[in-house]
Amino acid sequence: MTETDPRITLLRNIGEDIITSVRNHQFPTLELSDRSTDNMSYDPVSKRFRLGKSKVVRDSGNLRHVSSFSKLLWVASYTKRLLETGRTSSLRDLYYSSEAFGVEFRDQSESDRIVSDLECLTGLSREDLGIFPEEHSSIFGQVTMQYTVPGYEGKEIELTTSPDGLPIGAALMTAELVETEADLVLAVESGGIFSRLIETRCWEKFGAVLVHLGGQAPRSTRNLLKRLHCDLNLPVYIFTDGDPWGLHIARVIMAGSANAAHISDLAVPDAEWIGVTARDIEEYDLPTEKMSDSDLKRLDELSLDPRYQTAYWQNHILKFKDIRKKAEQQAFSRHGMDFVVDSYLPAKII
Amino acid sequence: MTETDPRITLLRNIGEDIITSVRNHQFPTLELSDRSTDNMSYDPVSKRFRLGKSKVVRDSGNLRHVSSFSKLLWVASYTKRLLETGRTSSLRDLYYSSEAFGVEFRDQSESDRIVSDLECLTGLSREDLGIFPEEHSSIFGQVTMQYTVPGYEGKEIELTTSPDGLPIGAALMTAELVETEADLVLAVESGGIFSRLIETRCWEKFGAVLVHLGGQAPRSTRNLLKRLHCDLNLPVYIFTDGDPWGLHIARVIMAGSANAAHISDLAVPDAEWIGVTARDIEEYDLPTEKMSDSDLKRLDELSLDPRYQTAYWQNHILKFKDIRKKAEQQAFSRHGMDFVVDSYLPAKII
Repeated sequence: MTETDPRITLLRNIGEDIITSVRNHQFPTLELSDRSTDNMSYDPVSKRFRLGKSKVVRDSGNLRHVSSFSKLLWVASYTKRLLETGRTSSLRDLYYSSEAFGVEFRDQSESDRIVSDLECLTGLSREDLGIFPEEHSSIFGQVTMQYTVPGYEGKEIELTTSPDGLPIGAALMTAELVETEADLVLAVESGGIFSRLIETRCWEKFGAVLVHLGGQAPRSTRNLLKRLHCDLNLPVYIFTDGDPWGLHIARVIMAGSANAAHISDLAVPDAEWIGVTARDIEEYDLPTEKMSDSDLKRLDELSLDPRYQTAYWQNHILKFKDIRKKAEQQAFSRHGMDFVVDSYLPAKII
Repeated sequence: MTETDPRITLLRNIGEDIITSVRNHQFPTLELSDRSTDNMSYDPVSKRFRLGKSKVVRDSGNLRHVSSFSKLLWVASYTKRLLETGRTSSLRDLYYSSEAFGVEFRDQSESDRIVSDLECLTGLSREDLGIFPEEHSSIFGQVTMQYTVPGYEGKEIELTTSPDGLPIGAALMTAELVETEADLVLAVESGGIFSRLIETRCWEKFGAVLVHLGGQAPRSTRNLLKRLHCDLNLPVYIFTDGDPWGLHIARVIMAGSANAAHISDLAVPDAEWIGVTARDIEEYDLPTEKMSDSDLKRLDELSLDPRYQTAYWQNHILKFKDIRKKAEQQAFSRHGMDFVVDSYLPAKII
């Protein structure tokens, strides 16, 4: 968090370019990647969502751009101050803070959008810029990390320290990975399964770093999954409920989300979805619920989504459409409390 | 977690009484407190919700009771097994696990209700019986606790170990309080404020143990608040959004909830709600939103609720009805990012 932090240098350079333009009697402009769906595509080679080459310009010489241009600069200066002081903020807080500076966003969706603009302009994620979500995933496993946040610099934490797991907040997300004795990462959707895997010492048995997703994984969690995979060479397995929403939680971790297509380094294309698949529902004779209309509509949407255009994913979708039923991860308990850890998971990941 | 655990003894005694009845050729019965609203009242002396003396009986000799009688016994045996093996479960998992035993609940609301029956029968909360919610609050502060869960027995943890806070899960909730250097507890509704108070080292400045509630506090969190208050003599302050929902988050911590009126030891009647009050909204000139119809309806409900039948609480409600506006905790950021920690909180709790 020193003056030489490359993120701060990058933000300062943006400001200096603007000053240079003004000194040269030119209206300063900012050029950023176009985030519209027209410029977004799924890249089958890298197996992830990407933005194309199209750019948009915020031109301070164009009256219609003056507002978005100046708001983008304010957000840039806000994040520069966060980084300089080692502080963090939420999107909500950024929105309210703007009033202290006389900056008037119509509503939070406008300030959120301008934060995305800054991500495009800098190539950094909002978390890299000190802006974190309020919701947290959790993690537990044999990994040692070293904090970088003020007051904790250099302190190490082993991720089995708290048997309730540790939240993946601003501090853990920005911590350095030091070492691991684990062999794989197992990301699970539900908190009940996460707790069960900890208390049955499955993390030891499987050599697993456990991550509790709790729905669509926040970007901070996807970033950490990515680092565990790339920096520590751990394969990533994803275990979700057996329904279109669970399937898509897994697919977004693998291929990225449309909202963050401009942040290319969040995807883990090699991750593996281990279920609950429609086939599992049948084979394990799980208690099910009938799919609702919105479940079926979601399956239709996924079948058209560019991230699902391979036989492998289409087959998973078709099989769900075929059985028209869904099951939760915890449904394995019908075969006994430890069936999922003693039978299902070993069959899937060992 | 040994055989002499008084909770296990209590559950075994219930079973032995039933065996004795059967041996005496009598239909066994179970008697529990009546949880209906008729038997529920707010006790102005102890300042909390309480059940009256009315009882209900589950009589195995009555055909209409056989199902609820036997399901109650199954839930009791399920929790006894949890306690004997040092394991935990969620309400959802209990529901699915029943299928492994041929017990058929109509739906989860039925098994949840029978868990409440067991709470009434034993006087223990479901968390005491090994059943935990999936959602967690978080805690951070200068408190040392000692784990009791298997694999961690005797291990101490200082609650400033993780700068992202620690989840109040099954392990922390059942840990013993060892010591504290803190002077007070500050429970806050939003994660953004919780993070800000940690990173500005407010916990040091105010000597505060910080608790992130994240909406209505789970019982495990209310139990820990209670213990911090009673066992460590720390006063409890509650800081929520300025709307009827925030007000009621505070009031439930103080006076208890109707759902848990049969668990009398969760309330912290001496806790103090520090805002955001309707008066704060005006005095600090906070950005507001107009109250919705459901906000206003909720105010009407609260004004009739037995927990609000004092001039103090009625005045808070009236003032909200008067201004018809609401504000979030994070709205203080309009006066600068640190206004809430530098100005608002010191005015309220020092």
